[in-house]
Amino acid sequence: MRKNVFYAHSGGVTATINATACGVIETARQHQNDLGGVLIGKNGILGALNEELIEADHLSNEEVALLRDTPGSAFGSCRYQLKSPEDNPEEYQRLFAILKAHDVGYFIYNGGNDSQDTTHKIALASQQMGYPLTCIGIPKTIDNDLSNTDNCPGFGSAAKYVAVSIREAGLDVASMADTSTKIFILEVMGRHTGWIAAASGLAAEKMGDAPHLILFPEVPFSLETMLVQVKYCVEKYGYCAIVASEGIHYPDGSFITEASTHLPKDAFGHAQLGGVAPCLAAHIKKAFAYKYHWAVADYLQRSARHIASRVDLDQSYLLGKRAIEAACAKKHNIMLTLVRDSQQPYQWSVGEVALEKVMNVERHLPAHFISDNKMHITKSCRQYLEPLIQGEAYPSYSNGLPNYFDRTLLRLAKKKYSLNQHNTLETARTY
Amino acid sequence: MRKNVFYAHSGGVTATINATACGVIETARQHQNDLGGVLIGKNGILGALNEELIEADHLSNEEVALLRDTPGSAFGSCRYQLKSPEDNPEEYQRLFAILKAHDVGYFIYNGGNDSQDTTHKIALASQQMGYPLTCIGIPKTIDNDLSNTDNCPGFGSAAKYVAVSIREAGLDVASMADTSTKIFILEVMGRHTGWIAAASGLAAEKMGDAPHLILFPEVPFSLETMLVQVKYCVEKYGYCAIVASEGIHYPDGSFITEASTHLPKDAFGHAQLGGVAPCLAAHIKKAFAYKYHWAVADYLQRSARHIASRVDLDQSYLLGKRAIEAACAKKHNIMLTLVRDSQQPYQWSVGEVALEKVMNVERHLPAHFISDNKMHITKSCRQYLEPLIQGEAYPSYSNGLPNYFDRTLLRLAKKKYSLNQHNTLETARTY
Repeated sequence: MRKNVFYAHSGGVTATINATACGVIETARQHQNDLGGVLIGKNGILGALNEELIEADHLSNEEVALLRDTPGSAFGSCRYQLKSPEDNPEEYQRLFAILKAHDVGYFIYNGGNDSQDTTHKIALASQQMGYPLTCIGIPKTIDNDLSNTDNCPGFGSAAKYVAVSIREAGLDVASMADTSTKIFILEVMGRHTGWIAAASGLAAEKMGDAPHLILFPEVPFSLETMLVQVKYCVEKYGYCAIVASEGIHYPDGSFITEASTHLPKDAFGHAQLGGVAPCLAAHIKKAFAYKYHWAVADYLQRSARHIASRVDLDQSYLLGKRAIEAACAKKHNIMLTLVRDSQQPYQWSVGEVALEKVMNVERHLPAHFISDNKMHITKSCRQYLEPLIQGEAYPSYSNGLPNYFDRTLLRLAKKKYSLNQHNTLETARTY
Repeated sequence: MRKNVFYAHSGGVTATINATACGVIETARQHQNDLGGVLIGKNGILGALNEELIEADHLSNEEVALLRDTPGSAFGSCRYQLKSPEDNPEEYQRLFAILKAHDVGYFIYNGGNDSQDTTHKIALASQQMGYPLTCIGIPKTIDNDLSNTDNCPGFGSAAKYVAVSIREAGLDVASMADTSTKIFILEVMGRHTGWIAAASGLAAEKMGDAPHLILFPEVPFSLETMLVQVKYCVEKYGYCAIVASEGIHYPDGSFITEASTHLPKDAFGHAQLGGVAPCLAAHIKKAFAYKYHWAVADYLQRSARHIASRVDLDQSYLLGKRAIEAACAKKHNIMLTLVRDSQQPYQWSVGEVALEKVMNVERHLPAHFISDNKMHITKSCRQYLEPLIQGEAYPSYSNGLPNYFDRTLLRLAKKKYSLNQHNTLETARTY
């Protein structure tokens, strides 16, 4: 009668995806008349395919509450994409056999566009296979590049991290620019879209504030144009703080770390060695001999729960709560969305869209969000971004360090199937 | 009668050096019967030599209070080293002429070993030149490598930043290690000493926690040994999170980013391009083909006021306060120190040492702070470090971003001298 909920994380993790898990588990505990337990896929959908299901029931209320404060995914994530049922019928048979064995009636999947596609495929397959399964997608990505939603959970916290970081580093550079480092470059994530880079622009509240230049993947990179701007900033402000997206590329599409004529190759022949930041720094040094420093934030920017955005955290949590409520209401085959109800004051709510309507496209920075010189954000962009980094949501600390959820607490549900050597299901076994 | 105070910042800046300035200015305002105003050197001692003196009197109490929350140096810093009076008598003549013109009777200099040396030279010169000047040094460096003091202001906040960051990034890597990135490397500062790298070890509170390996400049780098440990960690914990000091080097003293047989050279022939982190990552990839990510914290770690250590902030502030009190007490020719009065519970106080006794040596991590495998910290090291990252000291926020001091508020004191084209003093002029 009371079916269990399968929930899992998919794709790159964020500072607040566990907050969504927290919302799912806490809300499911309030709906025990309608729902059974929550089974969480270890490493996303792979947890279902491999029958590695984590039992939320084993976690105390205090442990579940700590998920809200913990970055990364406590349960693991993956980038596994399901093929179509026609191309890999065995996989779907296995999946549904395991869902059936564990009495799962609700499938909630939290991830990016690919993950919504997975959820949609499973929703369709459940109908074809006559297995009733309420399928609900939750959006999530630090890249903020999903369509159908005003913004993406996880982004606001990454945005706040980069804006705070470039403000702080800018003050550092300004301190010694007269006699020392004049160029600082912070490389941020965003291989295809410049939302995170754009967020750094929030730190520049008045003329001369860092960052002075922002390099977006949406704007074809021109070394000459950048050098002109760098020189202008150094002469005008004494230094130049640059935020560069990892995805910036030349007009021919080659990444600036790849283009052989521009780029140092490493001894092993990999293009991965150098980052964008050191590459830009070398170009600037070559042109002007300015002393430089550079930083690459990498995972720090997407795991920085210690400086998470309160708005992002609240949205992430509420999406988990709403997903359970939607499950109870049997709202099948939808993805939840974030809706901006009002800009001034910022008001938001959780909406929904049919999974079949979720467009599997990357949402780029619109042209009117990029300044005339193509190296900063416009007022419109600021108006869009600013609400998303509002508020602080500090975790608790012990001994000087944040208290985060302990993954070793997790327990897997008892297996009801075993996999044979071909990694397909054997007949059901009783343990 | 009431002489002015000259105060300035020297060397690399920190997240809390402005807190010391706050302590100086606020305390000087409480001693107006004894002291005149506070004149702050723009860019350290250069401000005195160039007669660029910032008047603290122009700042409101609220503005001064904001210094406590602001990273970097609001007044600028420099790495300028005075020669001896014998080698450059003109410089001393200029310095004392300017101090005299601005009625300075107290000289407080905040910096590392070099800066204490500068203070000592000026103290001696003041006696030789018959110009009464109370000289007081304040220690400061994120590197924590000064002798004569238990720890250095600025270090605790950098330490907290790297420990928090590697804990967070470790959770991120753990989330996807089964199917994706298995290696994460965070490069931290510390060209000659491993104190910052060591601090990251605080995050590893139990077996398996990040960081798994710490690479210190005190330990000659062995690629083979590191690779063995990396493999062990990946097999045992599923991933390996490494913190590497920028200063690690091979037994022959060459930095790992320099050694031509090991290192990729960049297209411009600079060694600066690649960092330690990407270099290590390439070696690990070559050996095991593990997917990797790396981050370089650079200035972010020394400007991260948003996650400053409360203990560090309190110590930084109190040193400023004590410096003024020492000035009022005419305690000439000393450097203030931080003293650990008790380990458990941690209790500290401000002490002092004669400037002539300040040893101009770098304090390295002692052998008993480094674990048997040379790639982690010992319990003794943890006991030493732990108190220094205690407590949070969040700045205030507006619009989602920290409120920091606005440098454009600063006003220079009226010049009383002018420099001729040879950059030496002309005769005094009246304006």
